[in-house]
Amino acid sequence: MKIQKEQILDYNTKGLQNHNENFDFLTNKLSKNGHKVEEIISKLSEFQVAIPSWALGAGGTRFGRFSFYGEPSRLEQKLEDVGVLHALTKTAGAVSLHIPWDIPQDYAAVKQQADALNIKFDSVNSNTFQDQKNAKESYKYGSLSNTSQAVREQAIAHNLDVINIGNKLGSKSLTVWLADGSCFPGQNNFQTAFQNTQDSLKDIYKGLPDDWKMLIEYKPYEPNFYSTVIQDWGASLMLANGCGEKAFTLVDLGHHLPNSNIEQIVSILQLKGKLGGFHFNDSKYGDDDLTVGSIKPYALFLIFNELVYGMENNPQNPDLAWMIDASHNVKDPLEDLIQSLEAIQEAFAKALLIDQDELKAAQLDNDVVKCQEILQGAYRTDVRPLIERARLNSGGVISPINAYRSLDVRNQLIKERGRNTVATGL
Amino acid sequence: MKIQKEQILDYNTKGLQNHNENFDFLTNKLSKNGHKVEEIISKLSEFQVAIPSWALGAGGTRFGRFSFYGEPSRLEQKLEDVGVLHALTKTAGAVSLHIPWDIPQDYAAVKQQADALNIKFDSVNSNTFQDQKNAKESYKYGSLSNTSQAVREQAIAHNLDVINIGNKLGSKSLTVWLADGSCFPGQNNFQTAFQNTQDSLKDIYKGLPDDWKMLIEYKPYEPNFYSTVIQDWGASLMLANGCGEKAFTLVDLGHHLPNSNIEQIVSILQLKGKLGGFHFNDSKYGDDDLTVGSIKPYALFLIFNELVYGMENNPQNPDLAWMIDASHNVKDPLEDLIQSLEAIQEAFAKALLIDQDELKAAQLDNDVVKCQEILQGAYRTDVRPLIERARLNSGGVISPINAYRSLDVRNQLIKERGRNTVATGL
Amino acid sequence: MKIQKEQILDYNTKGLQNHNENFDFLTNKLSKNGHKVEEIISKLSEFQVAIPSWALGAGGTRFGRFSFYGEPSRLEQKLEDVGVLHALTKTAGAVSLHIPWDIPQDYAAVKQQADALNIKFDSVNSNTFQDQKNAKESYKYGSLSNTSQAVREQAIAHNLDVINIGNKLGSKSLTVWLADGSCFPGQNNFQTAFQNTQDSLKDIYKGLPDDWKMLIEYKPYEPNFYSTVIQDWGASLMLANGCGEKAFTLVDLGHHLPNSNIEQIVSILQLKGKLGGFHFNDSKYGDDDLTVGSIKPYALFLIFNELVYGMENNPQNPDLAWMIDASHNVKDPLEDLIQSLEAIQEAFAKALLIDQDELKAAQLDNDVVKCQEILQGAYRTDVRPLIERARLNSGGVISPINAYRSLDVRNQLIKERGRNTVATGL
Amino acid sequence: MKIQKEQILDYNTKGLQNHNENFDFLTNKLSKNGHKVEEIISKLSEFQVAIPSWALGAGGTRFGRFSFYGEPSRLEQKLEDVGVLHALTKTAGAVSLHIPWDIPQDYAAVKQQADALNIKFDSVNSNTFQDQKNAKESYKYGSLSNTSQAVREQAIAHNLDVINIGNKLGSKSLTVWLADGSCFPGQNNFQTAFQNTQDSLKDIYKGLPDDWKMLIEYKPYEPNFYSTVIQDWGASLMLANGCGEKAFTLVDLGHHLPNSNIEQIVSILQLKGKLGGFHFNDSKYGDDDLTVGSIKPYALFLIFNELVYGMENNPQNPDLAWMIDASHNVKDPLEDLIQSLEAIQEAFAKALLIDQDELKAAQLDNDVVKCQEILQGAYRTDVRPLIERARLNSGGVISPINAYRSLDVRNQLIKERGRNTVATGL
Repeated sequence: MKIQKEQILDYNTKGLQNHNENFDFLTNKLSKNGHKVEEIISKLSEFQVAIPSWALGAGGTRFGRFSFYGEPSRLEQKLEDVGVLHALTKTAGAVSLHIPWDIPQDYAAVKQQADALNIKFDSVNSNTFQDQKNAKESYKYGSLSNTSQAVREQAIAHNLDVINIGNKLGSKSLTVWLADGSCFPGQNNFQTAFQNTQDSLKDIYKGLPDDWKMLIEYKPYEPNFYSTVIQDWGASLMLANGCGEKAFTLVDLGHHLPNSNIEQIVSILQLKGKLGGFHFNDSKYGDDDLTVGSIKPYALFLIFNELVYGMENNPQNPDLAWMIDASHNVKDPLEDLIQSLEAIQEAFAKALLIDQDELKAAQLDNDVVKCQEILQGAYRTDVRPLIERARLNSGGVISPINAYRSLDVRNQLIKERGRNTVATGL
Repeated sequence: MKIQKEQILDYNTKGLQNHNENFDFLTNKLSKNGHKVEEIISKLSEFQVAIPSWALGAGGTRFGRFSFYGEPSRLEQKLEDVGVLHALTKTAGAVSLHIPWDIPQDYAAVKQQADALNIKFDSVNSNTFQDQKNAKESYKYGSLSNTSQAVREQAIAHNLDVINIGNKLGSKSLTVWLADGSCFPGQNNFQTAFQNTQDSLKDIYKGLPDDWKMLIEYKPYEPNFYSTVIQDWGASLMLANGCGEKAFTLVDLGHHLPNSNIEQIVSILQLKGKLGGFHFNDSKYGDDDLTVGSIKPYALFLIFNELVYGMENNPQNPDLAWMIDASHNVKDPLEDLIQSLEAIQEAFAKALLIDQDELKAAQLDNDVVKCQEILQGAYRTDVRPLIERARLNSGGVISPINAYRSLDVRNQLIKERGRNTVATGL
Repeated sequence: MKIQKEQILDYNTKGLQNHNENFDFLTNKLSKNGHKVEEIISKLSEFQVAIPSWALGAGGTRFGRFSFYGEPSRLEQKLEDVGVLHALTKTAGAVSLHIPWDIPQDYAAVKQQADALNIKFDSVNSNTFQDQKNAKESYKYGSLSNTSQAVREQAIAHNLDVINIGNKLGSKSLTVWLADGSCFPGQNNFQTAFQNTQDSLKDIYKGLPDDWKMLIEYKPYEPNFYSTVIQDWGASLMLANGCGEKAFTLVDLGHHLPNSNIEQIVSILQLKGKLGGFHFNDSKYGDDDLTVGSIKPYALFLIFNELVYGMENNPQNPDLAWMIDASHNVKDPLEDLIQSLEAIQEAFAKALLIDQDELKAAQLDNDVVKCQEILQGAYRTDVRPLIERARLNSGGVISPINAYRSLDVRNQLIKERGRNTVATGL
Repeated sequence: MKIQKEQILDYNTKGLQNHNENFDFLTNKLSKNGHKVEEIISKLSEFQVAIPSWALGAGGTRFGRFSFYGEPSRLEQKLEDVGVLHALTKTAGAVSLHIPWDIPQDYAAVKQQADALNIKFDSVNSNTFQDQKNAKESYKYGSLSNTSQAVREQAIAHNLDVINIGNKLGSKSLTVWLADGSCFPGQNNFQTAFQNTQDSLKDIYKGLPDDWKMLIEYKPYEPNFYSTVIQDWGASLMLANGCGEKAFTLVDLGHHLPNSNIEQIVSILQLKGKLGGFHFNDSKYGDDDLTVGSIKPYALFLIFNELVYGMENNPQNPDLAWMIDASHNVKDPLEDLIQSLEAIQEAFAKALLIDQDELKAAQLDNDVVKCQEILQGAYRTDVRPLIERARLNSGGVISPINAYRSLDVRNQLIKERGRNTVATGL
């Protein structure tokens, strides 16, 4: 399954006049207010978000899983799926692999396929939260933090393997998410667990190529329900500082206690030059992994306000690894990802409409009402024409969900793959 | 201080062309998609939200209060303030009084003033959470739920007084918010407290005029920090059912535990014909009483989606008492209220753009992606031109915050009242 | 595997003197303070908690499952396991089956086995949250609330089957837990979903034998992450009232939003005569299903305070169905259940030490300090000798965890069953 | 009001026999199990908790305050109250002053009074969250983080004043709690606010005497309801590290988001040598400031488990400043504080009963069940006889609440001070 340029051009003809009208009207309005529309569109076009290889099939919960039809069952098919997303949206130009679920058989072939689809290999993800068949040691009681040296060594070696695999594909960062923690008071010695984790991370860090980054994720709970070793950004930052300059904190939107002010965390990490990556999703209760922007789109906009500020004002902070990390329990995974990509672009576009100078002036005046007016003024703008134009400029479609359905993509995939396939790792 | 029609007309001239362009463009687009724009504008014009008399001065926290300049210090000035809000926005055509803070001296004069400003007297609010000077009994350990009969009788008598006062002004409902509860395990017998409350409410209900409603508020915590007698909608509904047909549940957005699905509560109450009123505000942590729509505007939109549905489909549910219940710690209270009114109108307008038939069809198909597209399609629309037009049609201003500042209202108020006035009850 | 009386007697000899010393000392102290120790012990002996058939193997999370050795792989072995628990603790004299995981092949044999182990069949549980192999309709988008009549009918028929199965075994209640809800705003029409659920429950209710109860569980979220049809006790109670006198609300400790006051819910439900059952577990974040009493033992005690009060003062409320509903991710399931049973007995014993007359008097005096002293006085008492005595009186062991290990039960089970068995439903 | 030694001796005679029986029985049991009871009692006797000067009168909420009778209205009376607490409990041998509420008129006299009562001056607290009469600059929009240099300088100067006042009294640390933050998105530039705070703290740090510590408190929200500059331990630690070796993080139990694992924070801060102080209270919803141990006593025990571990194993961490920070809305403040002191001693005593070697061994075995047994074994022990003995050894009373009432302390205070006094700062 590959979407052809002709299909896209053909699809776009229908909506073009309508798009042009909307775009011209909006551009005219924005320009009058001093916005540089071309610049915004150019930034939108450049913005690329990685698709995780495990998000292309149906997800589930501990109560079960309802599978979806035509899921990709091997790496090549996963790349195909990302190719579809990228062809339509032109914002999914990267994939983030999960090892051991996605170990390539033939590296050259895989790279060639990705090149043809214009997809890069973004951060690679290790897995020390599940036991693999025939594994010598078990991660039941932790991996990098385990009290057993043999377990820690196995987990370190796995991470070094992952770096090696990623290196062959052109990845430039390793993402470490640890499930390590405890389910009951007393189970862990917090200090020992923390120090073991620090030592293990240092050992992995030693194996990191010079131009790589190590991204350390945090999460307050699940799958452990009493404590997690890297429970918040403070712990992650401490560990990153303990490793060195190439280690950074990675923020996943769903990995916070209720009511956390995530935008402030993002901002302070950028100030310190230590924000390394970002996992997008949305949630109402916990790490619900819902479609980006489906529950709290204004919070996403506020986060992008900080990210835009940081990209402009914090040269000390590196370029970020952007990824969607959602689970698709009741939607077609590809449609879900398209909706996520749209929501990200929307939040980014609106954040780019904030007049930072005006905002700064209002802040200095303590004019709280005006600060809010400025943010809400940007947020209330219907930016869809800008996103459409950015996509069109890059060769994508005006309306990706609509195009996906018009082109009957899912049925094509089912035809090619059969109905009841299951993606590796699910 | 009274805003004159001429001032409004004069102010509007500047922005009219711009408004017309935006409105025409949007109307054209919406009409093509089958929306009846005139009908939407008419609904927006009719929608009126009560301003609570205690929200016209600066609020505070237990850590202190930073006062604002030119606050209204007596009822007449409070009505003046509501008059300003209504003149500009044409959506604040009601006031909700709080007794004993706002007992009129001269009922006829007060009614005349309100009539002249086109303001109605909405629900009246009793206060049994504070001791009044020279009160015989104390509410320290509860009011309607108190174990002491004398305290309960005082609280019941006060509520009957409030009905009487409201009746003279044309109010048609009594809002009962109880702080009753406990700070420590064991302090209260839950069952006794609940039954006392039920009995007390029944006694008040007996004094309710035939065309009145009793609105029973709920809240999980604060100012009591272990238990609250009416802790949630289930408890409120039980008490309302125990009173009779004229008793209803009142929902205050800030009165919920973290992550509550408020729109579902609203929907089920309407199904049962028992949603009586609504207090608008916004919050991130608890009952923060922030400006409506300043934190979670999408959640507000989802609630309005249910309210719009209920208004169309639930004839069993009465017309609602709408009120803003916010506290203004760092903003000019009038500007804060204008921002709240705008946010309410925006959420209502967007909810009116949802195609309910299309949504129902998608729901029946279990097309979750399309359900989301429909909601987000409405939400992403920039509806400001519609709200502006609704205001213009009613004689209000295009942009209320801007007009408020252009007309220099606050400085006028300070000139008339002095800087360091304090509103009753604050 | 069956534990013999001789093994128990033999085991108890070692600790008996120590137990007697402790028991005599405590009894002496308590008696001086007016406590009727014999009565307390008798209540403790009578108190029996059902073990759910699905809690005898290792649980897992959506991130995977680490299996345990020697798990029971069929109903007979599950009953054996409950038999072990009951032999040691004498408080696990019931089992709660889950259909379709535990459909008996030979009813007579199963009943005979249970009788021999002195185990009753408590509430039976239906499952409409997973699709069974070869099922005609899917529950992906709901069961009793589904918009499709065919799906609802399948779910209703399943529940009627479950009643039938339970009836053959001597069960007297059906527990309905619905996962029904939605993952995204707009997916469900709340009112339709609620009414469908009410109608479906009524159909099931019609099939309920006269001496049966229907227990309706509620839960705010998971596995649906935006809304759940029966989201709280208010919704459950409304549905139970809609069904009739034999329908009740079931409270599961983990099924609440953060910071909920569960003891108040329990108390008010008893006041209304509508608390039907109770699922014990503990949690820190969400529905973590941890060992009872492992995180918030004082909260459990406060709940038992209400339960004890209700058992004494609310004849309108029926006897409750007690069950443990925990998941065992890192502990031997049987040891985990023993710790849960101990924690339940402890909380019950401490609640029985509260002097209800003294408490009532302090409450009437608003002597909050004394109310707390009374509760904490009971809670601070070391009641282990009382629980030990209650067990001894019934033929159990002094210290169940210790005995379980001394008797080498797990290794016996592994020997009999093999290491890598997996329980049905896991 | 001063409690005389004779009164205490006299009071103790009644309960002594009972205490001795309990103590001897418990000691015998504990000694058999290898516990060194004398050592535990000695540690309990040495443990002293500071009473904050503002906690001696009734607290309130934003909805009002119900005052208590006989409150201390000036510093001398506050010290008297602490003297009463210390005479009875022998664990309240310190007071923590709040400036400007408690500026001494006559330093020598105040010191003499404190010496006579055996009370030390613990950490002094600055106040930049309220405007003082005649203050030149306002803290409405922040203090140390304010965008205005003049405001920051006023706040810095105030902190230096506080150090100076504390120095004259013998204090050795300054506690900085900042209310600084924002109520609305956009109001603050997070990075500017953070850097201003860091710079201001550095300026204060320069004025810190060599043998002093600076304790930096954190809090997620209230009185600001969108963001707080020092929102969590990570931010506090970053600021402390930015100041230098004498700056530390202070943990207040109520200053956390729902479900935070506080014991882990405490543990990791000790590992890093950066835990400087501790504010005790309890809460169910937010910063409720309830009596210590009244809601989650097991969580308090788990925290003490970490504190005990840290005191033994983390020489890199300094001695902690212990303080109760509760608010007394419905209890006699002195009785409330006595209950808090009891709960702290209880948690400490139970934590001292944990066999750390046994625990470590079980942790290394991943014997989660045993880890829990060890913790719960200690927690289930009734340690009241140990606490009584520690008090008796130091000259205090067996049962402080009981003694306080027997000695009719509150009525004495009312006689001396009158009923309707109000403490400064309330």
